[in-house]
Amino acid sequence: MTAYEIIRKKRDGGKLTQNEIRCFVEGLTDGSIPDYQVSAFAMAVYFCGMDDDETAALTDAMAHSGEMLDLSRFGDKSVDKHSTGGVGDKTSLIVLPLAASCGAIIPKMSGRGLGMTGGTVDKLESIPGYKTSLDPQEFLSLAEQHGMALIGQTGNLAPADKKLYALRDVTATVDSIPLIVSSIMSKKLATGSHSIVLDVKFGSGAFMKTLEDARLLAEKMVTIGKKCGRNMAALITDMDTPLGHAVGNSLEVNEAVSVLKNQGPDDLTSLCVQLASVMVSLSMSLDAGESTRLVSQALVSGKALAKFREWIASQGGDTAFIDRPEALGISAVRHKVCAVRDGYISHIKTDSIGMTSVLLGAGRKKKTDSIDPTAGITFLKSIGDKVAEGQPIAILHTSSDSVIRQAEDLLCSSVLISPQPPEKAPVIREIIR
Amino acid sequence: MTAYEIIRKKRDGGKLTQNEIRCFVEGLTDGSIPDYQVSAFAMAVYFCGMDDDETAALTDAMAHSGEMLDLSRFGDKSVDKHSTGGVGDKTSLIVLPLAASCGAIIPKMSGRGLGMTGGTVDKLESIPGYKTSLDPQEFLSLAEQHGMALIGQTGNLAPADKKLYALRDVTATVDSIPLIVSSIMSKKLATGSHSIVLDVKFGSGAFMKTLEDARLLAEKMVTIGKKCGRNMAALITDMDTPLGHAVGNSLEVNEAVSVLKNQGPDDLTSLCVQLASVMVSLSMSLDAGESTRLVSQALVSGKALAKFREWIASQGGDTAFIDRPEALGISAVRHKVCAVRDGYISHIKTDSIGMTSVLLGAGRKKKTDSIDPTAGITFLKSIGDKVAEGQPIAILHTSSDSVIRQAEDLLCSSVLISPQPPEKAPVIREIIR
Repeated sequence: MTAYEIIRKKRDGGKLTQNEIRCFVEGLTDGSIPDYQVSAFAMAVYFCGMDDDETAALTDAMAHSGEMLDLSRFGDKSVDKHSTGGVGDKTSLIVLPLAASCGAIIPKMSGRGLGMTGGTVDKLESIPGYKTSLDPQEFLSLAEQHGMALIGQTGNLAPADKKLYALRDVTATVDSIPLIVSSIMSKKLATGSHSIVLDVKFGSGAFMKTLEDARLLAEKMVTIGKKCGRNMAALITDMDTPLGHAVGNSLEVNEAVSVLKNQGPDDLTSLCVQLASVMVSLSMSLDAGESTRLVSQALVSGKALAKFREWIASQGGDTAFIDRPEALGISAVRHKVCAVRDGYISHIKTDSIGMTSVLLGAGRKKKTDSIDPTAGITFLKSIGDKVAEGQPIAILHTSSDSVIRQAEDLLCSSVLISPQPPEKAPVIREIIR
Repeated sequence: MTAYEIIRKKRDGGKLTQNEIRCFVEGLTDGSIPDYQVSAFAMAVYFCGMDDDETAALTDAMAHSGEMLDLSRFGDKSVDKHSTGGVGDKTSLIVLPLAASCGAIIPKMSGRGLGMTGGTVDKLESIPGYKTSLDPQEFLSLAEQHGMALIGQTGNLAPADKKLYALRDVTATVDSIPLIVSSIMSKKLATGSHSIVLDVKFGSGAFMKTLEDARLLAEKMVTIGKKCGRNMAALITDMDTPLGHAVGNSLEVNEAVSVLKNQGPDDLTSLCVQLASVMVSLSMSLDAGESTRLVSQALVSGKALAKFREWIASQGGDTAFIDRPEALGISAVRHKVCAVRDGYISHIKTDSIGMTSVLLGAGRKKKTDSIDPTAGITFLKSIGDKVAEGQPIAILHTSSDSVIRQAEDLLCSSVLISPQPPEKAPVIREIIR
């Protein structure tokens, strides 16, 4: 079947065979199918969808379009974690040492951030000396020694996805569940872990705006991961407000440490314990109660913090910041933002907070932008807190005085203060296994 | 608005503004909008459609993407004719001198054929000496002198349509009414005639398979043409069986002459008289009865044949074939095909007849193929004729013995012979003005 016939079949609502999908992905990868056919195909999928068989075939074909990391040395114990991303999401920095300190094995590759705030790799790069790029053998041997390693995405992983995503991004074909699922899952398959735990976020700061959409995406990813032979679980979590108190790279690294010292914000701590517990349960075939008990012990006993220190050191990072947060540097400009009226903080518009952090220098507008590691926002108050007019609610961190006024305005308009305390919603809404 | 935003708006079912459409067409023409965005846009239009305002804007923008032929010297009298194409469609060769001999002015540019059979230009090129390519001034002055001129499409006419069509052709986005309408009408607008008569065909040998689809297309083209300031009419005609008896380039030229001698097949003659009559009526602001009377007189009196002779000579053609058909050459191989049983010819599968003629050498499979001008098929029997087993029903003309067997099998399987005579359907089904 030619690319033309595959496009037409999908356009007409047909179900593509595994073989047709494999051929299309091969042609897209080697360039024999031109971009204009790929984008027309993506638009046909946008309108006609793909069933689970097709989505699994697309995922598998894109995963196999490049290198596949071989994690067979870890048997069934390797486990990966993926967050659909959000403002202030530093969970990986906490969850990985938590789970690894309980015996899970986590050789993780992470992406850089674009829009909103930095990605996990950007956050780690605010630690002096930390190597986010290692050759595969070194990466795997660190994971073997320490139970975990975390580097940036490397090598030729799922190049078909890279090409397809770049085209979707400029042809308004990103918002398609089968294409989103296959994009995420193909990279996860290529990085090889036997088990995968998804943190699917919804709300104003997330890609999925509603719980229903997030559930749909989570269920699909779990289904497709299982069809492709992986152990799967997904948490559906609230990203309608930023996670924790810190937004910005070094600020978030320090907040991660405070969580591992069991001194962090409740929302972030409970999410991390739950995520780590699901990872431990999948990696070590333990029931939910047993794995939660293990993870909580690791947090309280300091075992998780010790694993964090061991990990950062193993990848060349200077661990001084674990005891002295200011070792990561302090931004030149710090500016207090105060409440504009009396009341309760009832809502924080997460997407605007993301934009504020980009304005301050903590995120990228385009791929080539550089990031200011010390820039960002520290919230002094959380949802539900009572505030008085003029009382500080947040600190802006930046290297440039000139953006302060605009950032302050944006932040003030993002933090809603109401006469009545809001109903508090739990961070974790559902767990899908 | 960026190309991305225009694609997304259309994807979401939005109505594009005239300005958005003009920007998109400009970007597509100058290459600043890449092919992969254009094809994604075409697929979005395939699914979401375009209303009349959008289609008219697209038509107008594509018409203005290149040169616009200036026919102002002819006032309101210039008239064009467009057929959506079909097997054995030689109507232009007949209709143009018919209408021109009654006073209509027809400076016409025609396309080459692809698939099925040759286009009008291919048919004319089977006449020794006939020049299908003239510079615009010569073309217009011939039309002024003789009331008509007919050449191949020339110059930089509607380059946006050329680019868009090439992409649609390979991305399964041809079958979209607004895109079909704007493609046809943009070229018609660029060639400048004040009035346009459309011959929209339906049936097995046409692009539109059903009367309903053809009506939809015809009504849309008339609406869009009027919105763009032209005088419009459309005939909906049956292409479920081939038109006339001849299929193939020089064979059709000779059949055109026989019609102009008033010795042609009834179906073809009546269609041509009606088409010419509508053209005369639009060009000269006459009522239908008056123009039909004029056209019929021109046919019977030989005035139309004289105009044909004058036209062919004016463009350098040797007119010997008008009196001696064999002057156009005779194919090396001629082979009689006989009826396989007794009965009535009840149906001729026009698409298979088209394929048979390509096999014989009369059409192109791809743009670069050359055409054998003398190849084709002459039917000795028409729909409804009684035949006896073994009685000749058609002659195959070709230069190569080797294709005869296959062509004969294909032709026999295309001509259905039934025990009962079929109901005869008229060629012209509707006239839309």
